Amino acid sequence: MNYSDYKQHLNKIANLNTAIAVLHWDKEVNLPPLGAAPRGQQIATLSGMAHELATSDEFGEQLQSLANVSTLSEDEKKNVSLTLKDYKRGKKLDLEFVVALSNATSEAYHSWIKARKSNSFEDYRPALEKLVDLKRQEAEKLGYEKHPYDALLEYYEPGARVEELDVLFKDVRSQLTTLTARIREKENVANDFLFQRFPHQQQWDFGLEILKNMGYDFDRGRQDVSPHPFTISFSPQDVRVTTHVDENNFAPMTWSCIHEGGHALYEQGLLVENFGLPLGQSTSLGIHESQSRLWENNVGRSKFYWSAHYPRVQEIFSAQLGGISLDQFYKGINRIEPSLIRIESDELHYHLHILIRYELEKALMEDKLQVADLKEAWNAKYKEYLDVEVPNDNKGVLQDIHWAHGSIGYFPTYSLGSFYAAQFFNQAKKEIPGLTEEIAKGNNQSLLDWLRTNIHQHGRKYTAKELCEKVCGEPLKVKYFMEYAEKKFREIYDL
Amino acid sequence: MNYSDYKQHLNKIANLNTAIAVLHWDKEVNLPPLGAAPRGQQIATLSGMAHELATSDEFGEQLQSLANVSTLSEDEKKNVSLTLKDYKRGKKLDLEFVVALSNATSEAYHSWIKARKSNSFEDYRPALEKLVDLKRQEAEKLGYEKHPYDALLEYYEPGARVEELDVLFKDVRSQLTTLTARIREKENVANDFLFQRFPHQQQWDFGLEILKNMGYDFDRGRQDVSPHPFTISFSPQDVRVTTHVDENNFAPMTWSCIHEGGHALYEQGLLVENFGLPLGQSTSLGIHESQSRLWENNVGRSKFYWSAHYPRVQEIFSAQLGGISLDQFYKGINRIEPSLIRIESDELHYHLHILIRYELEKALMEDKLQVADLKEAWNAKYKEYLDVEVPNDNKGVLQDIHWAHGSIGYFPTYSLGSFYAAQFFNQAKKEIPGLTEEIAKGNNQSLLDWLRTNIHQHGRKYTAKELCEKVCGEPLKVKYFMEYAEKKFREIYDL
Repeated sequence: MNYSDYKQHLNKIANLNTAIAVLHWDKEVNLPPLGAAPRGQQIATLSGMAHELATSDEFGEQLQSLANVSTLSEDEKKNVSLTLKDYKRGKKLDLEFVVALSNATSEAYHSWIKARKSNSFEDYRPALEKLVDLKRQEAEKLGYEKHPYDALLEYYEPGARVEELDVLFKDVRSQLTTLTARIREKENVANDFLFQRFPHQQQWDFGLEILKNMGYDFDRGRQDVSPHPFTISFSPQDVRVTTHVDENNFAPMTWSCIHEGGHALYEQGLLVENFGLPLGQSTSLGIHESQSRLWENNVGRSKFYWSAHYPRVQEIFSAQLGGISLDQFYKGINRIEPSLIRIESDELHYHLHILIRYELEKALMEDKLQVADLKEAWNAKYKEYLDVEVPNDNKGVLQDIHWAHGSIGYFPTYSLGSFYAAQFFNQAKKEIPGLTEEIAKGNNQSLLDWLRTNIHQHGRKYTAKELCEKVCGEPLKVKYFMEYAEKKFREIYDL
Repeated sequence: MNYSDYKQHLNKIANLNTAIAVLHWDKEVNLPPLGAAPRGQQIATLSGMAHELATSDEFGEQLQSLANVSTLSEDEKKNVSLTLKDYKRGKKLDLEFVVALSNATSEAYHSWIKARKSNSFEDYRPALEKLVDLKRQEAEKLGYEKHPYDALLEYYEPGARVEELDVLFKDVRSQLTTLTARIREKENVANDFLFQRFPHQQQWDFGLEILKNMGYDFDRGRQDVSPHPFTISFSPQDVRVTTHVDENNFAPMTWSCIHEGGHALYEQGLLVENFGLPLGQSTSLGIHESQSRLWENNVGRSKFYWSAHYPRVQEIFSAQLGGISLDQFYKGINRIEPSLIRIESDELHYHLHILIRYELEKALMEDKLQVADLKEAWNAKYKEYLDVEVPNDNKGVLQDIHWAHGSIGYFPTYSLGSFYAAQFFNQAKKEIPGLTEEIAKGNNQSLLDWLRTNIHQHGRKYTAKELCEKVCGEPLKVKYFMEYAEKKFREIYDL
């Protein structure tokens, strides 16, 4: 196998995987009720074929010898070595185990749906126990140096380690607790004007304007409606986003457009010529999330951004927001208030929601916590960290789908995303004079160019850690996020 | 390989093929402009894999020995023997030839697009010459008894032969020419009221009502908009239709809904347990078209059908059609008038359009006509058969995409569809007392049940010819179509 054969093989796998992505997209956006069963069969068949192609012994041997070819360019070497790394990791799980895990996940998912209906963790518990047990086994099979959780983290944030995350989160927790305590002493800002009737079509049209303005390319993508907003890529030339419209709330559609738009810009910014190769893939979920959150929060909840766009909002929704000043709007969309539900959380408490999940997942993997005690542990931590009482399971331990998908080690990437976002945006401001003034004029091109050059185009050429060093000249530091938060909320709450 | 392995293998192929169908559907309905290239790659990869699975030597040997197992049920035997037949036919074309054909088709398609833009057959001619040459070779490779065209017909209408079609069309031509000549002597009926402004949303909603009323199951499908209406199946549990709305014409959306709805009812009526097997596939394009045309014409252009639905049309479009009586409406939607474009043709001249294509295709395959002379031959036949002058290539020889797709032998199935439709509907009326009265009350259930029982559920268990014999007790006869046409237009035109 020469490099060109290798590329062809990876393209074949990528074509299968992106076909699966189309099947998933269509499932979320279009599927008629009875279409779910045949769709599951299609996805299973294609996944099996992709898995076979990616893990055959023959391919492994060929990769191994290709990795020793001295005439490859740097990028070519990088592609081959990353593919080999993926291959070796994949081979640690035998087919029997993969099938068992897939079945347990499917069972956990259905139990979770059932439990959500009955609002009872008990309906979920047995399936989750089975699944957690398998995830523990999975960590052992995959191997790790210091902590079993590291083995799972590697799926989502290659190179991240418990040792470092513990330090990071400890830091964040103490600083955030102090900051939110100071905010709680102040009178809260009003945001009731966000909860008026905003007609579907007007919201939808505004969302498209927002996306276009960000630089999302509709020649290489489209937006649709789905219950839960998401971004999915079939190639850098076809990256789709979805949104959700709540006619009684201005926020969900608006910031999901900006958030998913940020994800989509990353995917549209990967290089077409690297399609199917590691260098054509995003480097980690944390970096992916940094792109969505940079746009959603650092830009999309800033005063400079809305000084460009709020006049348009007032034009479209004059009856609802004509009497609300930019300052009131800006404060309202940044209102801080502890709550029960992660996805409804403000920018600060959000990371306490994540910390709770991180600590619980870690304890489950260490066998220090059992699923039978998970609900109590969840509720106790919510009382301790956010000072809220969990009134029922749907508003507590059942609120997220992630564990039911077998995703353990995923949650921390959300917080990492915010931390990377703050650090990257700080760097962009340093390197682009007048950046926020440009954005305040409705022009995001310099920012997008900077992200394209510094982040998007590299794909997996650098790990998240390497990328941060390369872009910012230093490793990830929470201080950029905290500085951003301190400055912003000091002003909003007159601290 | 036992029967259960065989079923599993066919399921795998079907899952790949229906995934390809999803990719095609999405291409027509959703694709962003730059998504075409990666989509082509996905489809090519999956098609290659499906082809490999269906034509491997190993599978052929296994099929051959399974065909000799005596313990199979009748249906099982039928499935295996049809799969073996498909397999053997597929093996007659070597991979090299398949690739050459696929490249020539792709080239012809792009040339056709270009020629449509320049309105010049010359831009299409060289690519079509190459393609026709390959189709001649294909017919030789596939083999035939009497006529090379038979080898290609077999793709679309298994068992159909030039020998019989020639007789059929000769009959039709003389009778249709006589009938349309009699009609031309009369003053034409008015249909100008169809060309008013009918707003998109109202048409769309009405189309959904029409589909529901036919029995199309929206739990197992959905309707979307695409440039050219089509039906596509991912399984009997997910059969989708598309329509096209022209705000200045009531007809296209309405009858495309009914037409595609007829196709979709066939696909929804195949048995889920036969998914992936020959008995779970439609028997021929002629029979498929009989289902769409029975609904579109025999039902959907009848007075009894519109006596149920026209009041609703008048309610929705009161400004446009409030003053047009059911009788006027009925006559208008059945207006006869020779025209240049097949897909805009009335129910009678339509078959002359088809006859022209059939004769030209046959002559091309016989090497009696060359592509260089195709345009002149086309124009001459339009003058002779329809008495119209072709003013330019787009309105003549360039109007259909079929040849550019490499589909030669496809056109006759459209006429066969109409002829089967008339014969089936005649039979249904004989077997269901009061059928048209029921439909006139808006109730189509008896008709749908009859079609499900007599036609849909069988899949490929019977060939088109066998099915016709089984359902009607006699072979296909054009007289049922002609009787239907005579009766209908005698009344409309007072002949």
